[in-house]
Amino acid sequence: MYGLIGKMTAVAGQRSALIALLLDAVERMPGCYSYIVAEDTADADAIWITEVWDSKDSHARSLTLPEVKAAIAKARPLIAGFADGVTTTPVGGHGLVKVTG
Amino acid sequence: MYGLIGKMTAVAGQRSALIALLLDAVERMPGCYSYIVAEDTADADAIWITEVWDSKDSHARSLTLPEVKAAIAKARPLIAGFADGVTTTPVGGHGLVKVTG
Repeated sequence: MYGLIGKMTAVAGQRSALIALLLDAVERMPGCYSYIVAEDTADADAIWITEVWDSKDSHARSLTLPEVKAAIAKARPLIAGFADGVTTTPVGGHGLVKVTG
Repeated sequence: MYGLIGKMTAVAGQRSALIALLLDAVERMPGCYSYIVAEDTADADAIWITEVWDSKDSHARSLTLPEVKAAIAKARPLIAGFADGVTTTPVGGHGLVKVTG
């Protein structure tokens, strides 16, 4: 499996709008096992995204899906930056539910 | 919801043994929505644990379950340290599957 953990910072006041866009296509990304969006409790503009995919390729392919591309285009003006990105190899746990499509 | 993201470092050479212990009780923790264990791709001793719970209380209660306490006791000698811990408020996504019990 292929995993990503990263922090996204929204333009001030736009975190909720950005989160809504991030969640828009979340159940329709083939090869996705987990994609969880969370608010940082200490920073009112920060969002944590933790992802698990069956492969790096599935993640890359998701970024080419028309509805994901549309969401990214809408989200871009609401994003101030990225930080603390980590690539992982998930090995197990609870809540891994593969999306097929 | 209540979320945790953190990095655990294993004693050199003990990462796989530590991961096995972390995964041991994972499907039997009431209130858990997601608990994913991943290897860091850049550090052979590092493990990332990302968790989602219905409440902070459910997380705290899980640490008192006999089988979780037993796993922690076995894991302790294999843990070299913790870092990069973040508390979050998860708001949605794919792969949130509540354990009841």
